[in-house]
Amino acid sequence: MNNFRYYNPTEVIFGKGTIARLSDLVPKKTKVMMLYGGGSIKTNGVYNQVMSALKKHDVIEFGGIEANPDYATLKKAIKVVKKEGVEFLLAVGGGSVIDGTKFVSLASKYKGDSPWDILTKGAASQITSAIPLGDVLTLPATGSEFNSNSVISRRAKRQKFSFASDLVFPKFSILDPETTYTLPVKQVRNGIVDAYMHVIEQYLTYPIGAIVQDRQAEALLLSLIEIAPTAMKTDPCDYTGRANFMWAASLALNSLIGRGVPQDWATHGVGHELTALYGLDHAETLAVILPWLLRHKIDQKREKLVQYGERVFGIKTGKVEDRAEKAIVATEEFFNSLGMPTTLTAHGVDPDEAAEEVKTRLNKIDFKRGEYKDVTGDAAFAILKMSR
Amino acid sequence: MNNFRYYNPTEVIFGKGTIARLSDLVPKKTKVMMLYGGGSIKTNGVYNQVMSALKKHDVIEFGGIEANPDYATLKKAIKVVKKEGVEFLLAVGGGSVIDGTKFVSLASKYKGDSPWDILTKGAASQITSAIPLGDVLTLPATGSEFNSNSVISRRAKRQKFSFASDLVFPKFSILDPETTYTLPVKQVRNGIVDAYMHVIEQYLTYPIGAIVQDRQAEALLLSLIEIAPTAMKTDPCDYTGRANFMWAASLALNSLIGRGVPQDWATHGVGHELTALYGLDHAETLAVILPWLLRHKIDQKREKLVQYGERVFGIKTGKVEDRAEKAIVATEEFFNSLGMPTTLTAHGVDPDEAAEEVKTRLNKIDFKRGEYKDVTGDAAFAILKMSR
Repeated sequence: MNNFRYYNPTEVIFGKGTIARLSDLVPKKTKVMMLYGGGSIKTNGVYNQVMSALKKHDVIEFGGIEANPDYATLKKAIKVVKKEGVEFLLAVGGGSVIDGTKFVSLASKYKGDSPWDILTKGAASQITSAIPLGDVLTLPATGSEFNSNSVISRRAKRQKFSFASDLVFPKFSILDPETTYTLPVKQVRNGIVDAYMHVIEQYLTYPIGAIVQDRQAEALLLSLIEIAPTAMKTDPCDYTGRANFMWAASLALNSLIGRGVPQDWATHGVGHELTALYGLDHAETLAVILPWLLRHKIDQKREKLVQYGERVFGIKTGKVEDRAEKAIVATEEFFNSLGMPTTLTAHGVDPDEAAEEVKTRLNKIDFKRGEYKDVTGDAAFAILKMSR
Repeated sequence: MNNFRYYNPTEVIFGKGTIARLSDLVPKKTKVMMLYGGGSIKTNGVYNQVMSALKKHDVIEFGGIEANPDYATLKKAIKVVKKEGVEFLLAVGGGSVIDGTKFVSLASKYKGDSPWDILTKGAASQITSAIPLGDVLTLPATGSEFNSNSVISRRAKRQKFSFASDLVFPKFSILDPETTYTLPVKQVRNGIVDAYMHVIEQYLTYPIGAIVQDRQAEALLLSLIEIAPTAMKTDPCDYTGRANFMWAASLALNSLIGRGVPQDWATHGVGHELTALYGLDHAETLAVILPWLLRHKIDQKREKLVQYGERVFGIKTGKVEDRAEKAIVATEEFFNSLGMPTTLTAHGVDPDEAAEEVKTRLNKIDFKRGEYKDVTGDAAFAILKMSR
């Protein structure tokens, strides 16, 4: 086990009816900005619940934060924050709204020329205060509600960067599973795969004697497999399924299981390119890459794959050499059981073309990911060629 | 799953050589009090490491905090804190030293007549600030380094009470597994059983659809079983074994696995009486009670016992009715494999006498524990009678 630091001061308020708690969680006598996305919260009742809880607060609104929150949009928010003297930010939405709010929180206090420095020049480490933020989560997937990370896009330049800062941990996150009842089932499916992949990226590398972290990662994978069918139920939705889905997705990326262990994140890196090129949902890209990346790296990852197969899918028989492949097949079967394809061809994307395009793009940015930093553009080429 | 709140802002610094980090973690230009126990840190090198890291700090010492920290001792510490204007407390030791330091932290700011009110009159909730504290953990067991709880004894009145307050979360906890290398093996054994029991108290009740929490509790139980033989090795000690033991013990009672689920804690409650009466170690009391409490409550706990047996010990065959008992036997075998007895008679204590004595004591305080609050003095009588 490597040395590590674990720190996560976010207060999680979890359960039915908890949005009402905003009335005491959001500081009184402060100027509050509520940030949200495309307006689905206005049709599903969440907006009304939030406003009802904040009826004694001084709230201004900033809507329109898009999926993959855009720098241009967030700059507008920062302008309003400064002009209106906003002192508390409340994100209401999914990971994109929360990520965007984190950026606004930090960038509003940045004294340099351009807040873009936070994303490209490591300026986050020079900033000593941020506007406090809290959130109401409505789409379990990214874990942003329970960590200090943020991913921001700049469409004008076709760029996507991330930052992390202790200053942007949400002060609180309200997780009411009932807010997910109006989600399209595809988003639930995506959220389950996204959460599953967050665990995989922190787990499926090589053994390092992190017995506790391994067991906890496996616990989340087992949970996601167990709850997926119930969580995907609609009409009526199942509270227990949604609650466990929401909590598992939060714990998948609250940084706990990744402490002291090697991490991969190559699937995410390659996946971003597929979203940019073909508009596949983030989770869809992960599912068409992972199985083939695992096959490409099967010798390096064999020991963990065998452990994963045994503990998560009960693969205990057969030759050890074969069990790694069996674990990959079981992963594909799990994704497919959710209606999630595991090949590019299933999405109508030509693997040969995608392999070429992605390789070119990744080589331009000198892409190097994976626990050995050896997933490069060329490796991505080989991986995507197989995804048929 | 019940609604819950999860909040834990303690910064954990984990690994080899991390005591040196005190130099930047303990605030500069403040008056620091270092609190410790019987002085073992002076012979095992920890004291020197701490003092070396704090050589530029203004540190006064308060040694002599006993196992089950005593109110009289802590009152002396509070007096020094007030007299010297101490602004930061550094606990160096195990759970007792940290628990005691938490009490000093809060009680030093209490304006009422007697700090005992914190333990008996719920005065903790009226206190709005505390002296910040950090710690260097040297004995994994209680989880105090990663929670807001504290248990204080008052020997003069033969009392033992607890309190909890967000104000006493350690600002940081340094967990260096090498500090455990000089522990007597009996303390390691006790720590493993203590951590295991912390998980059991939060897990082995009745199903409530908390699929994630169950899996995470099982992950810790599986971890403790897996690492116990390596963690107990001495001469030389095994770093991986000690590191996983230390991290598992911290996670067992950092409150995460217990969120949104029923909890038991009857074994702990009855155990305290056996320590008071016969001087058994805390962990020893837990091991002689648990198997018999589980048998006493086997009908109420059957569903979880079967799940526990299957997931933790692989008991998947045989009649469902028999598997609960098999899970109890497997637990006894695990404890026994560590050299930990599971009967009162093995400690030379007469179960009939102990049952009588404990019943009398518990009935006096109207003891009611367990997930149904039905473990009373009379139930304890029946449980202890069996422990032979």
